[in-house]
Amino acid sequence: MNFADRLDAAVAAKGTPALVGLDPHLELLPEEFAAARDTSRPRPLRAARMGDFCCELLELVAPLVPAVKPQSAFFEALGADGVAQWERVVRRAKQLGLLVIGDVKRGDIQSTARAYAAALVEGAGGSSDEACDAITLSPFLGADSIEPFLEVCARTQTGLFILVRTSNPGSADFQRSGSPELSFRIAERVARWGEALLGSSGLSSVGAVVGATHAAELADFRAAMPRTPLLLPGYGAQGATARDLGGAFLAGGRGALINSSRGISFAYREARYGGLSWQAASLAATRAMIADLAAPAGKP
Amino acid sequence: MNFADRLDAAVAAKGTPALVGLDPHLELLPEEFAAARDTSRPRPLRAARMGDFCCELLELVAPLVPAVKPQSAFFEALGADGVAQWERVVRRAKQLGLLVIGDVKRGDIQSTARAYAAALVEGAGGSSDEACDAITLSPFLGADSIEPFLEVCARTQTGLFILVRTSNPGSADFQRSGSPELSFRIAERVARWGEALLGSSGLSSVGAVVGATHAAELADFRAAMPRTPLLLPGYGAQGATARDLGGAFLAGGRGALINSSRGISFAYREARYGGLSWQAASLAATRAMIADLAAPAGKP
Repeated sequence: MNFADRLDAAVAAKGTPALVGLDPHLELLPEEFAAARDTSRPRPLRAARMGDFCCELLELVAPLVPAVKPQSAFFEALGADGVAQWERVVRRAKQLGLLVIGDVKRGDIQSTARAYAAALVEGAGGSSDEACDAITLSPFLGADSIEPFLEVCARTQTGLFILVRTSNPGSADFQRSGSPELSFRIAERVARWGEALLGSSGLSSVGAVVGATHAAELADFRAAMPRTPLLLPGYGAQGATARDLGGAFLAGGRGALINSSRGISFAYREARYGGLSWQAASLAATRAMIADLAAPAGKP
Repeated sequence: MNFADRLDAAVAAKGTPALVGLDPHLELLPEEFAAARDTSRPRPLRAARMGDFCCELLELVAPLVPAVKPQSAFFEALGADGVAQWERVVRRAKQLGLLVIGDVKRGDIQSTARAYAAALVEGAGGSSDEACDAITLSPFLGADSIEPFLEVCARTQTGLFILVRTSNPGSADFQRSGSPELSFRIAERVARWGEALLGSSGLSSVGAVVGATHAAELADFRAAMPRTPLLLPGYGAQGATARDLGGAFLAGGRGALINSSRGISFAYREARYGGLSWQAASLAATRAMIADLAAPAGKP
């Protein structure tokens, strides 16, 4: 089944568009994983402890949410040993029935793009067990940096989320340049690329990343990309609330994923979850997010 | 010594701005490394053969050029085993006295950028042996995605090459949008970021990637970034010639690196080097490039 349809079915089955981001900052891991940040320990052991945390978090959230989004930088921070844990985490998430959106933000010239596609959505080195269901891509290099992925996604039933407008304060520096703004020029291309990968759900396997922090523009991005799944970072730790997100959804609360990373992984550090184990805090934060997004303000 | 000064000294010592790119496409490797593309073989063995090729190429070119630019996608294509070979290749290149510019084109929000900086220019997991001397970055996410690297580069004496105008045909799609064009808006920021990292050579450790394929604009980019080392891809396989590059250099042939990847690594596949071993063909191609760039047309 095409990625868009798998995603749509998973959101319907779990009854929530909540997406759990896995950003295993070493310095924020719970105390029982402290060996991960101890530079006197061997790197494979440190990486394994980071991977243990991620896998335990996957077990907790798998019954509740449709998908997870591991962030590759935090795995790469431990080099080849960290990347081995990335592969373990992707495999484990898929075994648990979660869709995996690899947050890698790659973007390079055509011949290089093919190598990234082989690595990330076909499966590195021949096995598809480590392949993501979808990845994030940066469009900065233009159409010929995206097109090799479209072919591979069609063949492997995988998807893309292309950066259109990111959630960070600096996103205005270049993404808002020009008239129409660069982000809207990209949105138009994303919609067009997506036509080749439409599922029977009516949604495309070519999605877009649009920061939840840009509430006023969400409806405009939705109008420019009517069949595009939107991935919205910025909820929770970055400040966006469910009220801000209405414009991103299609009828019936479909077509958008709302991501929270630190707000779930590291909920145990927040005063409101004081006294809970990290596991109980992450579960409570996941349930609170799901409830928040299900409230009428969250879905128009 | 700051990266800009190390680079300037290395170019002067070797007497050439030629940069050798390492893009180990599995399907293009010489026959003796064919195990690397045999999906029936174990992935660690396949990756090791790819790494063997890269290390042998490093030995060949180390006496001739100041720096090499491994492209991470081709290593990531073999997953964690490929990344282990990336680390081996970076270590070996540094042992051979080469500067290493990791072509990774990363770009992400602030907290994630810090993790990438830790991985790529500080050294993954505590050792600096695998750290690159400089990396390429995509500026699409804006200033707060670049600034964490500036701090790390100042502390670790490393450098950056920020994508300003890439060499591929699709670069016009978004990089030329707006007025002034996005690439020139980025160039202005690159020049400003670079002021914090000036070396005694007068050059900055914040460089820029400008495709050699845009000959008519090179002098404009140079004028916008007068103290910025330029990294020019697109020479050779992508079609640019030494005549196209004059505008990129500062007086005395300083301040620019000219990259060739496939034209050197896979010279043995070209008719003009027919009958030579792959090693002899790569050496001949490196020497031909150096001679071409040294001709009067190459340096104004």
